[in-house]
Amino acid sequence: MQMEPQPFDRVLSSMCTEPHPVAREAAERFLATNPGDPGTYRTVSALEDDAIAILGEIAGLEEPAGYVASGGTEANVQAVRIARERADDRRPNVVIPDSGHFSFHKASDVLGVELRVVPTDDRHRADVAAVRAAVDEETALVVGVAGSTEYGRVDPIVVLSEIAADAGAMCHVDAAWGGFVLPFTDYEWHFDHAAIDSMTIDPHKMGQAAVPAGGLLVRSSDLLDELAVDTPYLESTDQATLTGTRSGAGVASAVAAMDELWPDGYRGQYVRSQNNAEWLAGALEQRGYAVVEPTLPLVAADIPQSTFDALRAEGWRLSRAATGEVRIVCMPHVTREMLASFVDDLDRLESRSSAPTAGDD
Amino acid sequence: MQMEPQPFDRVLSSMCTEPHPVAREAAERFLATNPGDPGTYRTVSALEDDAIAILGEIAGLEEPAGYVASGGTEANVQAVRIARERADDRRPNVVIPDSGHFSFHKASDVLGVELRVVPTDDRHRADVAAVRAAVDEETALVVGVAGSTEYGRVDPIVVLSEIAADAGAMCHVDAAWGGFVLPFTDYEWHFDHAAIDSMTIDPHKMGQAAVPAGGLLVRSSDLLDELAVDTPYLESTDQATLTGTRSGAGVASAVAAMDELWPDGYRGQYVRSQNNAEWLAGALEQRGYAVVEPTLPLVAADIPQSTFDALRAEGWRLSRAATGEVRIVCMPHVTREMLASFVDDLDRLESRSSAPTAGDD
Repeated sequence: MQMEPQPFDRVLSSMCTEPHPVAREAAERFLATNPGDPGTYRTVSALEDDAIAILGEIAGLEEPAGYVASGGTEANVQAVRIARERADDRRPNVVIPDSGHFSFHKASDVLGVELRVVPTDDRHRADVAAVRAAVDEETALVVGVAGSTEYGRVDPIVVLSEIAADAGAMCHVDAAWGGFVLPFTDYEWHFDHAAIDSMTIDPHKMGQAAVPAGGLLVRSSDLLDELAVDTPYLESTDQATLTGTRSGAGVASAVAAMDELWPDGYRGQYVRSQNNAEWLAGALEQRGYAVVEPTLPLVAADIPQSTFDALRAEGWRLSRAATGEVRIVCMPHVTREMLASFVDDLDRLESRSSAPTAGDD
Repeated sequence: MQMEPQPFDRVLSSMCTEPHPVAREAAERFLATNPGDPGTYRTVSALEDDAIAILGEIAGLEEPAGYVASGGTEANVQAVRIARERADDRRPNVVIPDSGHFSFHKASDVLGVELRVVPTDDRHRADVAAVRAAVDEETALVVGVAGSTEYGRVDPIVVLSEIAADAGAMCHVDAAWGGFVLPFTDYEWHFDHAAIDSMTIDPHKMGQAAVPAGGLLVRSSDLLDELAVDTPYLESTDQATLTGTRSGAGVASAVAAMDELWPDGYRGQYVRSQNNAEWLAGALEQRGYAVVEPTLPLVAADIPQSTFDALRAEGWRLSRAATGEVRIVCMPHVTREMLASFVDDLDRLESRSSAPTAGDD
């Protein structure tokens, strides 16, 4: 097998990144383990407890409970599943801003719950009045996003949790990407800030762990019981995860990364990433592009389709928001040099398209 | 992080194993990739096509379609999900022998389908008459097991597929563990033997890939469309997997293992494992234990609870079938020496419990 993985030097679209060296080392060491079979693979199962303890500390959860999932999709699906199981109704609904990740659509499809997608306001945050209007007696869950996929925005989590409580619904926060940068901001987003019940927070995104290491946290461990199925022929007796066999590499690598980087390493990375995002936003604005202000390290800018295509042809890995803006996620592997090189390519390609040469007519 | 993973030298309970060296190398090389985002992580996405091509060759599928899942649980859940989507009924049912893996109970819970569990016969295979009696107009799927978790038995797949076809239902084969040994037996189990629609076949079990590398195969790629959700903000446009971000390490390692071992390496391993299972079954029978004949490399034997507990206290990783037999899975890491050492410990512990010393009264 002669193929090599893609380099990261032009990847601007991904919310994953190169794992931190200690995370890579731990992943390689624990490659042949399965936390899905904790009686047999005991060390990695103990490590998972450590992972949840640190995640709880990051997310303001005094008695942390949860598990290391395959990623944010699994964690979001499981949060919806918990709410469905807790609901009295046969056809519960989930209220979510249109900035919610597509995994909630997958959850709706898989779990047979109704998804009520409400608009965001002009700052790309959940429109509180629209959420309030959408919630009813059959609402099982209100979802808030803390670091949205498209614009890196944080919903008014405290207000959303109050709306949920008033309706007798649960409240879930999707901080899959944001969870490892929000601790260094003034946002109110976590268990100690608001009466939320569950959270997605992925070590393999800004947490610099190796894929697959997502995180599901719940306020109380009895919420996990809603997910448990019996497990004959394992040494343990039940299993709350959506998948069965799981990656010990992901678990070990999450612990290694968080041990190494929480909190100072993550703070430093947040500052570097945020500075990069603001530098890029400034550079794009100077050139006349409409830019969505990067309140977290994610820049969205209105770049014409022809330029977008030309940049991709140059090897830049880019993707678009639903409304068309190019998203540039300032992950740890995205350096200032990389962004400067991107802007240089943008200038070159734009000048070419706006100033055709003599041979072009 | 000073912890070390468990050694494999006393693991007899797991259906996972130490990855082959080429599989480990590939997993480490592709650690920082995400086949869930194929537009960005292109090499690993191409490797996934290779993985499905080889899996198709192993499973008698001329135009292979499917994907590398997190494991057998995800693949089984997705097979049930396809059948649910294809069903006309609001409350479809799935007919499955009681030898079916617990992941089908998880699928039933998650997906809201009725599970009709039917007995197995005295050879631990699906009771065909019971399956026929359980199937009705609302049956969406008939499941057969090709290498059961408890006894390594293979259901009469051809007959099950005919029952399914007569009922207008789909047919799924769970060959998660068996798929990499069955090609070297006379069993009829795959797409070219029977009119089955989908199959679970996991490279990270007998295929010697690194976790997580399960496999879902479908007879026709349009079955995957039943699973697809739109994926804004990725470079690609839809996603048929249950999880979102996925492990490139698992995918690369599956390709490396299969490139290296299919078919001769797997054949050699099957012969070694099967010989080991037969040796162990003989040794246990000689000692008076009731043993379920290992028709595939898995031995189940009736060992008293006190001895079972004593063996676990000695560090042997063991688990039980639902009816109480100890299961010993002859995975590639399970050598003849290991089994001899296990039998020595068994002898020592049994003689101690049956012949108490003077100090014991």
